Amino acid sequence: MTQFLNEKENIVIEAVDGIVAASGGKLARLNGYPHIRVVVRKDWDKSKVALVSGGGSGHEPAHAGFVGKGMLTAAVCGDVFASPSVDAVLAGILAVTGPAGCLLIVKNYTGDRLNFGLAAERARAFGLNVSMVIVDDDVALPDLPQARGVAGTLFVHKIAGALADAGQDLDTITDVAKRVIASTKSIGMSLDTCTVPGSPKEDRIPVGMAELGLGIHGESGVEQIAFNGARGAMEAVVSKLSASMSEKPHVALLNNLGGVSELEMSVLLRELIKSSVGSKITHVVGPASMMTSLDMRGFSISVFPADSDDLKALDSSTPLAAWPGLSKIAPIEIVPLPDGLTPIAPLASNHQPTRDFLTGCCELLIAAEADLNALDAKSGDGDTGSTLAGAARALIGAMDKLPLSDHTQLYRAIGQELSQTMGGSSGVLLAIFFAAAGDAASSGLPMRVSLQAGLQRMQEIGGANLGDRTMIDALSPALDALESGLNDAAKAARRGADFTATLTQAKAGRATYVSPAQLEGHVDPGAEAVARLFEHLAS
Amino acid sequence: MTQFLNEKENIVIEAVDGIVAASGGKLARLNGYPHIRVVVRKDWDKSKVALVSGGGSGHEPAHAGFVGKGMLTAAVCGDVFASPSVDAVLAGILAVTGPAGCLLIVKNYTGDRLNFGLAAERARAFGLNVSMVIVDDDVALPDLPQARGVAGTLFVHKIAGALADAGQDLDTITDVAKRVIASTKSIGMSLDTCTVPGSPKEDRIPVGMAELGLGIHGESGVEQIAFNGARGAMEAVVSKLSASMSEKPHVALLNNLGGVSELEMSVLLRELIKSSVGSKITHVVGPASMMTSLDMRGFSISVFPADSDDLKALDSSTPLAAWPGLSKIAPIEIVPLPDGLTPIAPLASNHQPTRDFLTGCCELLIAAEADLNALDAKSGDGDTGSTLAGAARALIGAMDKLPLSDHTQLYRAIGQELSQTMGGSSGVLLAIFFAAAGDAASSGLPMRVSLQAGLQRMQEIGGANLGDRTMIDALSPALDALESGLNDAAKAARRGADFTATLTQAKAGRATYVSPAQLEGHVDPGAEAVARLFEHLAS
Repeated sequence: MTQFLNEKENIVIEAVDGIVAASGGKLARLNGYPHIRVVVRKDWDKSKVALVSGGGSGHEPAHAGFVGKGMLTAAVCGDVFASPSVDAVLAGILAVTGPAGCLLIVKNYTGDRLNFGLAAERARAFGLNVSMVIVDDDVALPDLPQARGVAGTLFVHKIAGALADAGQDLDTITDVAKRVIASTKSIGMSLDTCTVPGSPKEDRIPVGMAELGLGIHGESGVEQIAFNGARGAMEAVVSKLSASMSEKPHVALLNNLGGVSELEMSVLLRELIKSSVGSKITHVVGPASMMTSLDMRGFSISVFPADSDDLKALDSSTPLAAWPGLSKIAPIEIVPLPDGLTPIAPLASNHQPTRDFLTGCCELLIAAEADLNALDAKSGDGDTGSTLAGAARALIGAMDKLPLSDHTQLYRAIGQELSQTMGGSSGVLLAIFFAAAGDAASSGLPMRVSLQAGLQRMQEIGGANLGDRTMIDALSPALDALESGLNDAAKAARRGADFTATLTQAKAGRATYVSPAQLEGHVDPGAEAVARLFEHLAS
Repeated sequence: MTQFLNEKENIVIEAVDGIVAASGGKLARLNGYPHIRVVVRKDWDKSKVALVSGGGSGHEPAHAGFVGKGMLTAAVCGDVFASPSVDAVLAGILAVTGPAGCLLIVKNYTGDRLNFGLAAERARAFGLNVSMVIVDDDVALPDLPQARGVAGTLFVHKIAGALADAGQDLDTITDVAKRVIASTKSIGMSLDTCTVPGSPKEDRIPVGMAELGLGIHGESGVEQIAFNGARGAMEAVVSKLSASMSEKPHVALLNNLGGVSELEMSVLLRELIKSSVGSKITHVVGPASMMTSLDMRGFSISVFPADSDDLKALDSSTPLAAWPGLSKIAPIEIVPLPDGLTPIAPLASNHQPTRDFLTGCCELLIAAEADLNALDAKSGDGDTGSTLAGAARALIGAMDKLPLSDHTQLYRAIGQELSQTMGGSSGVLLAIFFAAAGDAASSGLPMRVSLQAGLQRMQEIGGANLGDRTMIDALSPALDALESGLNDAAKAARRGADFTATLTQAKAGRATYVSPAQLEGHVDPGAEAVARLFEHLAS
């Protein structure tokens, strides 16, 4: 599978450079490429306890993305899924450790333990005060003598980071980190393995199955289960966690393993809250990509029974975009709908001239149904006549409910009627036309100007201009000419409609999909309807 | 393809509930399910201009994830890739709009324009002051009469959001939004289309090809190009943008379309900065998932020539985790490696008894090579004897360089020597053992206690305990017994080593992979080596 990467040997250093570049000048990297890739804080004066973490790459934003005020001081980046060397770790420690000492936060993998462990010894030989904690939060494989370190590591980074930032000493921070580790439990689930750069993808998980408890390097999980949606997936995951969860309130960290869509992650969060352990979860970190496994289409949950100090540390501010913050889970508040969705019907009133005028227009459109359909068959789907005739019939049927004697209200009422009875874009556009015209009329503008205001709004919303082969090509010149009387308006509308037959490139509506040769010589059905209306009114 | 979703008809409302739940009580949703799904701010008093956006779902975190202080006031969520209804938009407007009015920020798709447009008309009929801007930032399809609205929408959300939060009036905010839209340009590239829930995935982009300019609903792009890595991909993308970019400094928004790994996104950021338009880019937003297309394995770049007010607005604080913040692009600072990576060799010195003692131990290990290899063949890969003998030979060869008369330095020097000459985990573990013992000795502890301190550290790092079938099973009781003399220590080491033959479940090292039946009756080779060493010393 192709990936947005360059030469395999440069992947990690290029990603590191991207992270450093986007830090706004707050990060730097040590000059030890290719063997030493360490991201360090530039805004760091060694006056407090330094926190150094790292390990194999491929888990971004862990760990380089968490280097910054309130979290890590340095991250040591190995190759993809490979522990960094002792020298790289030592370089990181030496670069950031001052008199207050340094805590190494290491995920429980043999390579990381050994390399960070030996680097710590070598740093101690320089007289530095270095302690080390090993995160082993994964409960996926209970028979494994050594539990793996996965996304629960983020709890340690954040809590230790807050304490270090607050000036706590190394022993205190180390003790808290150990306590956090001892009570943090995690497990993951995935629908697919990850794609390791330069290697063929392992096709281990069949479609329709989900793997429970797989590792952040694609290591096999405990079991594959039939996948039946987000709800079942979440219940399978939390059932593995629930045995380790006391009755205390917990913080849950919902981690995207890399390739799950944001839409899915939000659904998973809902399922977590509604799950059998949901009542114990008072706070959440995420959903977010924090400890990924490249592009793995899976997620993990980490749970930790935080006390009030822990919550304060998790909630303390950090400028790091990769840390999504701590959120309190609140009941989903549902607000009643506002008044006004059902428009208040205007008071019906009669006005015989208006009734005759409207009825005449409607009858003309009904009579033109077949002609307009035939025209539309040349440029669209052949239903313009039926759509307009249907709306006209509905308007005739609604005549007794209309405020015929209040012209301002009448515009809006016609718009409302059309939006309810006329389908598709044209119904909405005409509704906008009449609503905007009503707005203008209500502020005292004369009819012609009000209708022009309606046209302008319809054009803004619909995006069609003169010459785009729409009804506007007839309506716009007609309204302009209306100043000199209905006769001139009718002539202008007809000229405009006829002109559409020469426009062979439609720029709005369905006719945009029709070839020029097919359009040539045929008048746009909407423009034709407008021309016929004006001709009817002028006659 | 399976996805972490439940019933298709509930996807959006469940995602909305997840987003609301994770808002820490800052969001609510309107009670209009199933037809009306609107996320609104709870911490909103209508005293300022409201910002309402939305559209089809599937673009998370847009738009619901951007509802909060400093950005949107409400988001109207349609079905996946489908515009919300007029009623839904109107409900959103009515719920949040006060005397200061409301700005609708709409992406340029016909359905959204019409539904937001008509809702605006209906809201105006209530006397509300509503304006609307249409984002059309996509430069992918220059021949399209209407450019689409894509991730550049985020610039509008953030800048308008900052102005609204600062109390600016509706006209001012609308004008600024229009200016931002006019100068924002975007384009995307993807290696794969997206997976629409409930539909089979379109297999349009062949492996090895990338599609340039495809839409956020999976609409076809302008062209497919041969994919040859992140660098070429980025250059193809920016070549489409460069024509629209003035010489002014620009902000670039690097958007993950959903399925690209964090590692790749960091590499892409580096390539953007190094690209032919990189010199014009002074600030970046992201990389982050902001305007996604479900799980699409692609990215988009949006560029905007921000002035100093715009930068201030983009940089203003918001509590929203989905907004990654504005970062200034700074040259990648590279810090020199710290001193101390090459350990200072201790001053060589001679001390004949120590030389004889060490040489004797080494010779014993060399003599035991074949025996220990044979034992290891039962439980591992048959090389323990060779590994130890090799280290012993190297130590004999290094004897003239060792500080033999300074025992404190000697521990560390042996550790250093072993870490350089002995491969694998055992070399690192013995290096840790000697380094920690040296630490203890340097603080004045007697030899036995120093060695015990080394053992303890080695156990901490290596993770092996008594009974795990390792050298510790001999070394630990031997050091305990050393208090009563070398004879007792040798006996204890032998008892411990023999005991490992009864341990059929190894818990550390390679023997963990060997079945109990194969292990039974065979002494662990590391423990055997320790026993022979103590027996040699006692003899």
